[in-house]
Amino acid sequence: MVTKNQIKLIKSLHQKKYRKEHQLFIAEGVKVIGELVQSSLILEHIYCTETLNFNVSPDKVTLVSKDDLKKMSALNTTSNCLAVFHCMQEKEVDYSDLVVALDDIRDPGNLGTIIRLCDWFGIKHIICTNETVDVYNPKVVQATMGSIARVNLVYGDLPSLIQVESDIAVYGTFMDGENIYEKTVSNKGIIVMGNEANGISSTIESLVTERIAIPRYGNLQQTESLNVAMAASIVLSEFRRHNFK
Amino acid sequence: MVTKNQIKLIKSLHQKKYRKEHQLFIAEGVKVIGELVQSSLILEHIYCTETLNFNVSPDKVTLVSKDDLKKMSALNTTSNCLAVFHCMQEKEVDYSDLVVALDDIRDPGNLGTIIRLCDWFGIKHIICTNETVDVYNPKVVQATMGSIARVNLVYGDLPSLIQVESDIAVYGTFMDGENIYEKTVSNKGIIVMGNEANGISSTIESLVTERIAIPRYGNLQQTESLNVAMAASIVLSEFRRHNFK
Repeated sequence: MVTKNQIKLIKSLHQKKYRKEHQLFIAEGVKVIGELVQSSLILEHIYCTETLNFNVSPDKVTLVSKDDLKKMSALNTTSNCLAVFHCMQEKEVDYSDLVVALDDIRDPGNLGTIIRLCDWFGIKHIICTNETVDVYNPKVVQATMGSIARVNLVYGDLPSLIQVESDIAVYGTFMDGENIYEKTVSNKGIIVMGNEANGISSTIESLVTERIAIPRYGNLQQTESLNVAMAASIVLSEFRRHNFK
Repeated sequence: MVTKNQIKLIKSLHQKKYRKEHQLFIAEGVKVIGELVQSSLILEHIYCTETLNFNVSPDKVTLVSKDDLKKMSALNTTSNCLAVFHCMQEKEVDYSDLVVALDDIRDPGNLGTIIRLCDWFGIKHIICTNETVDVYNPKVVQATMGSIARVNLVYGDLPSLIQVESDIAVYGTFMDGENIYEKTVSNKGIIVMGNEANGISSTIESLVTERIAIPRYGNLQQTESLNVAMAASIVLSEFRRHNFK
């Protein structure tokens, strides 16, 4: 049984303001919840329309009607379960390895994809502007497929977060940058990814010490740009490739 | 002025069946339409709610009400213009360069992203199963950002399309494949990308001659897979990288 007040609380978590206030967020679907209950995240509660085997204490699970689950859901297509987890504390950023910096990424799908990519490539820290979409946005949680528990996101004043160490290389992608395939890149440094529409802002651009570019192939009339998730895939792969050799 | 019958025809183009019958498709939004009118595509007509400068003959443009445009639109957020273009003829596939093969890609956003990536990396031909999402699906058109006019998609029996030349290398991504960063890859061959949920089917797997893998970084507990658009970004970049040297 779920009370009206519980439904109201869970619905409020669709909004960043209430996620911050309650320090809780929601995840939906068997796959994502299954990954998150096995992670270091603290589970508050699971609501589902049928008995599912999540290997959690029975008092953490409540069976609810499809109608009630639909009311709580933040997604267009409601699945058969929704879980509430506690938000993680932001950890201190370790600048001795690669760090990704996000300059106003606004699309939840893009942020989710970038978190998953960082997880794949063993990048544990992401620093972001306060204008970057919230990591606990339900669509971001969905897109991360569980990686959210393994990557630390720190929001704040990006220039201060970037300038924390004076000798660190700051990489940014620009059309006139150096061919990334020919450049020797380090396994330490900050890689900046810019906003979907405007790219890297001029404030952040002034902090970039290494301008890089993903070259287009051939001299044909081609697409003018790659989207930020595609660019991040290629750039992170290039940074890590050198270490597999 | 737009007639009820015209609206009906345009709405029918939301469905693959009618796109095939009429050999027409729709594109929405100033940016995509602007790119497509400059391409080799044949424009049927543009409908917009305000006068826009597309550099096309005035008899190809009709001003319509916002309500009428909303009726025609296939997107959740209707923009201020919608255009109808003629479908392209499938061209003969040139196997002397890299060709991408899609084994049941179902998500329109993923197909759009892959088309855009192929355009960036100068890959001109994509072969697909008949179950792969239709290239003229409005969400695919939207995601290609104009690249649709520069990449040739051929749908059909994928095993036959792959086996057209006997000596061609067929690359597929598998968890147990060879590290792509260490492998010498050619600038000729077919690169297979598998379905979002099931990967490469066993029929197609049996045709793969080169099993490759994108290695995960480190030995941490990590995300179990990359999505197909991220994997395609990394794999195509690796294939083309060798040619920039």
